[in-house]
Amino acid sequence: MVGGGQLARMTHEAGIPLGIRFKLLSDTPQDSAAQVVSEVVIGDYRDLDVLRAFAQGCDVVTFDHEHVPAEHLRALEADGVAIRPGVEALLHAQDKGVMRERLSEAGVPCPRHRIVADPEDVARFAAEAGEGDGFPVVLKTVRGGYDGKGVWVVRGVGEAAEPFRAGVPVLAEEMVDFARELAANVVRSPHGQAVAYPVVESIQVDGVCDTVIAPAPGLSEELSGTAQEMALKIAAELGVVGHLAVELFETRDGRLLVNELAMRPHNSGHWTQDGAVTSQFANHVRAVLDLPLGDPRPRAPWTVMTNVLGGDYPDMYGAYLHCMARDPALKIHMYGKDVKPGRKVGHVNTYGDDLADVRERGRHAADYLRGTITE
Amino acid sequence: MVGGGQLARMTHEAGIPLGIRFKLLSDTPQDSAAQVVSEVVIGDYRDLDVLRAFAQGCDVVTFDHEHVPAEHLRALEADGVAIRPGVEALLHAQDKGVMRERLSEAGVPCPRHRIVADPEDVARFAAEAGEGDGFPVVLKTVRGGYDGKGVWVVRGVGEAAEPFRAGVPVLAEEMVDFARELAANVVRSPHGQAVAYPVVESIQVDGVCDTVIAPAPGLSEELSGTAQEMALKIAAELGVVGHLAVELFETRDGRLLVNELAMRPHNSGHWTQDGAVTSQFANHVRAVLDLPLGDPRPRAPWTVMTNVLGGDYPDMYGAYLHCMARDPALKIHMYGKDVKPGRKVGHVNTYGDDLADVRERGRHAADYLRGTITE
Repeated sequence: MVGGGQLARMTHEAGIPLGIRFKLLSDTPQDSAAQVVSEVVIGDYRDLDVLRAFAQGCDVVTFDHEHVPAEHLRALEADGVAIRPGVEALLHAQDKGVMRERLSEAGVPCPRHRIVADPEDVARFAAEAGEGDGFPVVLKTVRGGYDGKGVWVVRGVGEAAEPFRAGVPVLAEEMVDFARELAANVVRSPHGQAVAYPVVESIQVDGVCDTVIAPAPGLSEELSGTAQEMALKIAAELGVVGHLAVELFETRDGRLLVNELAMRPHNSGHWTQDGAVTSQFANHVRAVLDLPLGDPRPRAPWTVMTNVLGGDYPDMYGAYLHCMARDPALKIHMYGKDVKPGRKVGHVNTYGDDLADVRERGRHAADYLRGTITE
Repeated sequence: MVGGGQLARMTHEAGIPLGIRFKLLSDTPQDSAAQVVSEVVIGDYRDLDVLRAFAQGCDVVTFDHEHVPAEHLRALEADGVAIRPGVEALLHAQDKGVMRERLSEAGVPCPRHRIVADPEDVARFAAEAGEGDGFPVVLKTVRGGYDGKGVWVVRGVGEAAEPFRAGVPVLAEEMVDFARELAANVVRSPHGQAVAYPVVESIQVDGVCDTVIAPAPGLSEELSGTAQEMALKIAAELGVVGHLAVELFETRDGRLLVNELAMRPHNSGHWTQDGAVTSQFANHVRAVLDLPLGDPRPRAPWTVMTNVLGGDYPDMYGAYLHCMARDPALKIHMYGKDVKPGRKVGHVNTYGDDLADVRERGRHAADYLRGTITE
């Protein structure tokens, strides 16, 4: 796996029971996954020679993030390395412009969008809405964003200059009047077998995922089925191998629009570690090895994932005493990362029959681990 | 953790979500746990200098097996190393004679037993039963046995010479007329907090654990409570820290007798990985770090663990295609070990509402992985 973040850490954890050998390409020995994996190569994923040497002896190469340059992925594929997902699929997770174009062609509903050239072009895009000046508009650099980075909500042409400064193409999108955000997680194997997890609700705070509720409360069977079918269709159309997260807007008038794609285990699927028969990490491993996929069904009526962000306390382990004693069924997943304010350093999963209770337990633990509350 | 076997492998897996650093002392880099752990020291656990160097920088040292010499453990304790369980407790898992003496003193019911000096003494021990010649009798070397090794059933004085050849004291025990074998698994922290898992039935084949059923079918609430109380009492009396497995005979006349003790995660607790809120491995880690213990309750009406023994096929991974496709809810746990006939190389967990179905799924998968069946 290329990339030493928490996704690689948890993928290794999920691979141990399968008896597979897991090799990691990590920036530093201190990276989250590098702390727990036996075979670690330290190197820069932007260096093709490093990637080539790393791929030697691997049956299959997969990714913790979308940042490996496409030209390097193509070179590895030309070398005969099995890359999963493949470069053609990954391009859609790397470049939001390519993704929007392809999904629109395939008839998948997306927010109104187009690539814009400059602030004046943003104003024209906004005016095309046909209502008032059309602002606010969402601007995104087509590459390199995550967790709200690389995304701007602009309320007029005067605010539209910043996104163009990076020199990366800018995508303009309508500001969707959404009721909430959902995520449809599916896993697809090279054989074309696919499984769909229950559709979840994802609650963001300041552009960062805060809470995921599985299944999405009150979601109709029809809309849930539509979301799963959209994700399965996207996976098949794009030839995705492995885990695919499709982030969706549920609009106030009851439509689903695709927001983002991720072709790797995803924050919206962390609840599966304790809440599904087979976790997204285990199924990602099975998919990239072309093994039959595991049962994605939930194990409890409700499972809630709550992210733990870095707070003021550099050492969160003191909080374990309180959190574990208060809630013996709490499932803690920490990433071994240094605490920095706002950084995702772990998550907790809670599950049970009573959603309000399950949410409260997760909220309390996450806030206590962060240091926001102390009792 | 000292010892690179599958118990260390699965303990590491369970420790990853807690964000702890796990250091391993392993005989070879090919050992089961050494394949998946980042910080591995290769060395001989019988060498005190090796142990001392390994313990440097560890907050706590725990064990994958009972074979570290007691004098080395005492030396480490004298150095100020936190050893959990401590040497006084571990002695009872290392030496069956010491264990029997201590449990009998504490009023814990055990099979009739005493240390015997030679074959003639075995005959005297047998005759003390007061019925016929008293044979068969069970002889055990007090140290070094596992999985049926170091245990003999002798039917007369003529068969009683072999156990004395190792030069280790020999314990004679009555041959218990048992209805079945049970195991009571508990975990105890230095604080004295303890949790008890549901009592399980353990089915042995040729002296090796084959199947574990959780909870033990048809076990009365009274006997289940008695077994849990016995295990909790033993853990407290002996000052155990970490996981304690108490293997029990359920006699045909409805009594419980202690067979063996293990002070570490144990084969009879592997079902907890997929069948309990908190696995034995996670709770062992929490206990040795003196953290509050996790909920030991079951997540399904029935969970069955079936061991996978090495068979004729050196590569079992081909069997994954069939096993995973046939049963998407199957939980496979392989140890990364070379296949040798009869060697424990993995286990599978199955769970559900219908015990017969859950057992069949486990049996089929284990037999297929071993190569005993091919369809």
